[in-house]
Amino acid sequence: MKNHAIKILVALSFFSVAPVFASQGERPNILMIVTDDHGYADVGYHGLDDDVKTPALDALANEGVIFTSGYVAHPFCGPSRTALLTGRYPHKIGAQFNLPVDGSTVGIDTSETFISKALQQAGYHTGAIGKWHLGEESPYQPNNRGFDEFFGFLGGGHKYFPEQYRPQYERAKAMGITRFNDYITPLVRNDKEVQEKEYLTDAFTREAVDFIDRAGNEEAQPFFLYLAYNAPHVPLEAKEEDLALFSHIKDKKRRTYLAMVYAVDRGVKRIVQTLKDSGQFDNTLIVFVSDNGGKLKWGAKNAPLREGKGSAREGGHRVPMFFHWPKGLKEARHYDAPVSTLDFYPTFLALADAKTPAGKLLDGKNVFPHILDNTSARPGESLFVLRHRRGFHDVSVRRDQWKAVRTTTTDGWKLYNVAQDRAETKDLSDQYPHILADMVKDAGHWAWSNQPPKWFHIHKEGDEWRDANMPRFGEAFQLQ
Amino acid sequence: MKNHAIKILVALSFFSVAPVFASQGERPNILMIVTDDHGYADVGYHGLDDDVKTPALDALANEGVIFTSGYVAHPFCGPSRTALLTGRYPHKIGAQFNLPVDGSTVGIDTSETFISKALQQAGYHTGAIGKWHLGEESPYQPNNRGFDEFFGFLGGGHKYFPEQYRPQYERAKAMGITRFNDYITPLVRNDKEVQEKEYLTDAFTREAVDFIDRAGNEEAQPFFLYLAYNAPHVPLEAKEEDLALFSHIKDKKRRTYLAMVYAVDRGVKRIVQTLKDSGQFDNTLIVFVSDNGGKLKWGAKNAPLREGKGSAREGGHRVPMFFHWPKGLKEARHYDAPVSTLDFYPTFLALADAKTPAGKLLDGKNVFPHILDNTSARPGESLFVLRHRRGFHDVSVRRDQWKAVRTTTTDGWKLYNVAQDRAETKDLSDQYPHILADMVKDAGHWAWSNQPPKWFHIHKEGDEWRDANMPRFGEAFQLQ
Amino acid sequence: MKNHAIKILVALSFFSVAPVFASQGERPNILMIVTDDHGYADVGYHGLDDDVKTPALDALANEGVIFTSGYVAHPFCGPSRTALLTGRYPHKIGAQFNLPVDGSTVGIDTSETFISKALQQAGYHTGAIGKWHLGEESPYQPNNRGFDEFFGFLGGGHKYFPEQYRPQYERAKAMGITRFNDYITPLVRNDKEVQEKEYLTDAFTREAVDFIDRAGNEEAQPFFLYLAYNAPHVPLEAKEEDLALFSHIKDKKRRTYLAMVYAVDRGVKRIVQTLKDSGQFDNTLIVFVSDNGGKLKWGAKNAPLREGKGSAREGGHRVPMFFHWPKGLKEARHYDAPVSTLDFYPTFLALADAKTPAGKLLDGKNVFPHILDNTSARPGESLFVLRHRRGFHDVSVRRDQWKAVRTTTTDGWKLYNVAQDRAETKDLSDQYPHILADMVKDAGHWAWSNQPPKWFHIHKEGDEWRDANMPRFGEAFQLQ
Repeated sequence: MKNHAIKILVALSFFSVAPVFASQGERPNILMIVTDDHGYADVGYHGLDDDVKTPALDALANEGVIFTSGYVAHPFCGPSRTALLTGRYPHKIGAQFNLPVDGSTVGIDTSETFISKALQQAGYHTGAIGKWHLGEESPYQPNNRGFDEFFGFLGGGHKYFPEQYRPQYERAKAMGITRFNDYITPLVRNDKEVQEKEYLTDAFTREAVDFIDRAGNEEAQPFFLYLAYNAPHVPLEAKEEDLALFSHIKDKKRRTYLAMVYAVDRGVKRIVQTLKDSGQFDNTLIVFVSDNGGKLKWGAKNAPLREGKGSAREGGHRVPMFFHWPKGLKEARHYDAPVSTLDFYPTFLALADAKTPAGKLLDGKNVFPHILDNTSARPGESLFVLRHRRGFHDVSVRRDQWKAVRTTTTDGWKLYNVAQDRAETKDLSDQYPHILADMVKDAGHWAWSNQPPKWFHIHKEGDEWRDANMPRFGEAFQLQ
Repeated sequence: MKNHAIKILVALSFFSVAPVFASQGERPNILMIVTDDHGYADVGYHGLDDDVKTPALDALANEGVIFTSGYVAHPFCGPSRTALLTGRYPHKIGAQFNLPVDGSTVGIDTSETFISKALQQAGYHTGAIGKWHLGEESPYQPNNRGFDEFFGFLGGGHKYFPEQYRPQYERAKAMGITRFNDYITPLVRNDKEVQEKEYLTDAFTREAVDFIDRAGNEEAQPFFLYLAYNAPHVPLEAKEEDLALFSHIKDKKRRTYLAMVYAVDRGVKRIVQTLKDSGQFDNTLIVFVSDNGGKLKWGAKNAPLREGKGSAREGGHRVPMFFHWPKGLKEARHYDAPVSTLDFYPTFLALADAKTPAGKLLDGKNVFPHILDNTSARPGESLFVLRHRRGFHDVSVRRDQWKAVRTTTTDGWKLYNVAQDRAETKDLSDQYPHILADMVKDAGHWAWSNQPPKWFHIHKEGDEWRDANMPRFGEAFQLQ
Repeated sequence: MKNHAIKILVALSFFSVAPVFASQGERPNILMIVTDDHGYADVGYHGLDDDVKTPALDALANEGVIFTSGYVAHPFCGPSRTALLTGRYPHKIGAQFNLPVDGSTVGIDTSETFISKALQQAGYHTGAIGKWHLGEESPYQPNNRGFDEFFGFLGGGHKYFPEQYRPQYERAKAMGITRFNDYITPLVRNDKEVQEKEYLTDAFTREAVDFIDRAGNEEAQPFFLYLAYNAPHVPLEAKEEDLALFSHIKDKKRRTYLAMVYAVDRGVKRIVQTLKDSGQFDNTLIVFVSDNGGKLKWGAKNAPLREGKGSAREGGHRVPMFFHWPKGLKEARHYDAPVSTLDFYPTFLALADAKTPAGKLLDGKNVFPHILDNTSARPGESLFVLRHRRGFHDVSVRRDQWKAVRTTTTDGWKLYNVAQDRAETKDLSDQYPHILADMVKDAGHWAWSNQPPKWFHIHKEGDEWRDANMPRFGEAFQLQ
């Protein structure tokens, strides 16, 4: 029997944390910066592609702790963000599909307390800026999930230039249409529409700078800011000034993509400056992460990781990820043991000296003590990726140095030592059959407590789910 | 994004209501009279059929506010009544099928607070008389749903003449049978069987008169009476004296049906007299409504509305409906904007100066201010009908003057201007494709938060649901 | 309408109970001894097989009340034990399958209060010893379900000789395996592994003796001990000294099986002695019951009852069952009316003068007054067995003297008078068609409030459930 799947009232260890801050007044600010479909090779500090320009991110990463095996809980957007903010595998709460397209009446179950709520209740000033994608109706909106402030859009994506999307919206409205495409709806500040004029990435940076600036005046109250850029997600729309820096790149998609990434980096530069100017830089934990792997056909690169967004291969869910915190993480380095975005929730709770909300289940761990000690937070324990397809599943299991994986194209289960072979080139399943069998068994058991999907991205997807008699786990977790 | 589907802790506006009553002592009594399978053309005041005889109802309607576009939330009994008393679309709580036949162990989820409970908690004396059909086991019975008093039957229908049904019941009992057909089980007063001797409609009238009479002695406490006649639902059984008035009608079914409607009207006459005699008439809101359209093959008429009970056409769910309240609605008139029985719950709450129960979701609106102002309560917003069939769905969307509809027989989606064309004769889908598309999209999104049925009327229906991989919304909400 | 399926806040009658104990100090201890796959013919006191040796059980039974029609709620382990401890049909809480094999992350819903919790809250000292099989993760473990103490194993079965299973466990562990076969995992005391050295049945007896011995020192506090031997469940492993007593039996399985039963009986002898030595014997209610019928191919016998473990025939779910309580049940005798393990919960509550937990539903009855009066606790009411198969169901309905049954092999529904014909030899369905029809109808209605299974024993079973469009109750509850 193993106990890693369900933990009630997780007892938070602070043995290694205690020395970091002595009194409540010193609890760190937490600034989580999330990018969208940002590839593993598309940050400069990974040194995997010379065209990438992310000087501000590189500076932070190289002074902080770079997670070389940083994973998201799902290889695409909605479920990955659900894990970020709830600390749960999306499969455990029926949220393993993106919300219905173009404005849905459903959202992440209100019984799941978001990390924002837990931090708010612990005295943090909380803000969300950018993309939401976790429910559009009132009970699911950021202000009702623990965010004091929200600026951004509620749907799954958005166009970048107001001078383009605004007229489209006005035209549709004039035709009597009430259900608008997410990508053209006006931005909102809390529950009020705003008339945004800036390029979207710059608008989000502006709001973040303002939030941090104001927070600097409230010394007694730390902040939690969830800054979710939708860049470099499609549509591929970059400013001319950013594009100009990449004029040597022939491929238009790649050129635009990198310009969009650079616009984020310009934002990070301004944000860092604001933190410094307001005296908050030293005690702000900056968390940087992409919500999933880059989408290859939209100009992203994950190489040498295989495949990209949506995949159970490393390119789908191993992402750029780092922590930066001068006061708490004094030593810059790489941390190679597996870390999951599921770990953020319990880690933030510990750093904020906050209680786990009553009855809250958490699937991750407080990794902070392990980061300080450079030890694995889960020796012998597995991290899972499960993506439902039409009639089958893609599954990945990461445990210690091992990765077991099965997709439609793998011809059965494969086993890799991804600590040495992150490109998944050498199948070791014949050499270590017991390890593989044990990992597959582990995944099979993990799946028992999965909840059926509470929604699908499109109705047709739901129809196919039923047509194919899903979930059909029996087939997925068979070795042969 | 639109916000009409889910409203938490609905803020009740009473701006237009305030002048109506100045103190709690003046809160109105609420008498809701429900008939069963009563056709749109089968009330005299609609002037659609000369054979109909409903003088008492006509007098009330013509002094009150007649809703020409009054809708129920479902075109058949159980789900429609669920909406009446819960204020929720039955699909949102898994109640979109009738309860299992002949005595079921399930009922409307106890987590849904009925309007009766809310009014009881607000100080009303509450009674239910007649047909229940919302659950037969103890937790689902009227006395446990906010009714101080209950007289009637718990199942889905009943025979009318005690001298006929009583011997049938006794015979079955003598054979050792314990599961009786609903239609022949003894009536109950609260949880005790009674030996009823009168024709069923007259028995219910007698009980209503008694309830109102007693209420007249309790000046300080307003009442809420839910009077649910099962007439003119089959079996078609009328008294000779009532039949005699319709002897000129050849069709036996029609003749009997109209005699049964007349028996209700006789009852309404007595009830009105009792209200007047006890000085309660002026401050009693009388709400009259049928639970769904008339069943054509059982003698009802809905013409010029198309089709009848069970249909997504107007004849299935646009029903006779009026409010009468001398003190609060001084001006007699027609109100033509769409009104739904979903609106009753929030409207009654407002009139009773009662709070929305904690955590209660409501799908309708307080329409009272809009009735006074003669403005639409939901401009640009939709009302939905969704009936599951074997392998497909019948769907209707009503918004402003428009109705979008799709059934097996419509050959795709149609669009009508039912404000001008209530008979649904002229399809305008080619002229207003954007309106149609927007309404279909609206319905598709509404359906996302539907719950799977918690029961079926017969086990076979459930088997077919699974066989057909329902709900198959993908097909239902496709334009082509 | 009938009211037997759901009872909220069951009002406990204590009219016949009151004389039994006058003050709280005299509430009885409750010792429930459960055996595993123990056949109806495999207790000496039933006098059905001369080879059986159970002198200690025979002595208790013959001084107590023997239930000749004692039923479990399901013909196999997990669901039967669920009913024992929750007082609910497992089908009502989605627990109608065994938990997933070899260590699952699911368990009996935590919203169901176990009888152990109710007794604990009523002041009892509570212990569980032996097999658990109701959930292995922390929230589902005995210590979180109302047991002050636990000693045993959490899975569905276990090997008996530590010298055999221990090396197997160590070998697997050395290979890096983390998911172990239930049968070889170390025993635990509360949440700590122990190094057990005794034959399993003897270990459980030792712990029970110790528990009772300690309880004897706490006069003011009664105890509830749930002693769940896994014997004589496979693997068939007996001690040489026990086998020696059955050397005349040729069939090795039968020989080993009876030796394992005898080991339990040796334990019961020691336990009785401990109760006597500590002065607790007179006021301890000893309940003895098997969790389901014996498995014929593993050496058990149920004859003359038909079939065995897993079956809807009597051999599957009519089991050895008796009560022994010198102080409360002074007269030794047979009680022939149907009794269910579902009745234990409300009966224990009444004897312990404990309240039904808030909101707790119970499917059984307090049978104690009826045992004293020798009257049936449920005249005219049914007990159900429903076992899901691949594409169909086996169903049994017991009411008064009647049993209606349908399985794949019965060619439609059959009716037996099992009070006279416990071997189900004479089908009376043609003679009493109305009785049969009424019982089938009763079962059909009972099934409406069944919940879909929350898990399956193996993933494949779940796949087949969906493939076959289960539950398909329409077919199961058709007479033809």
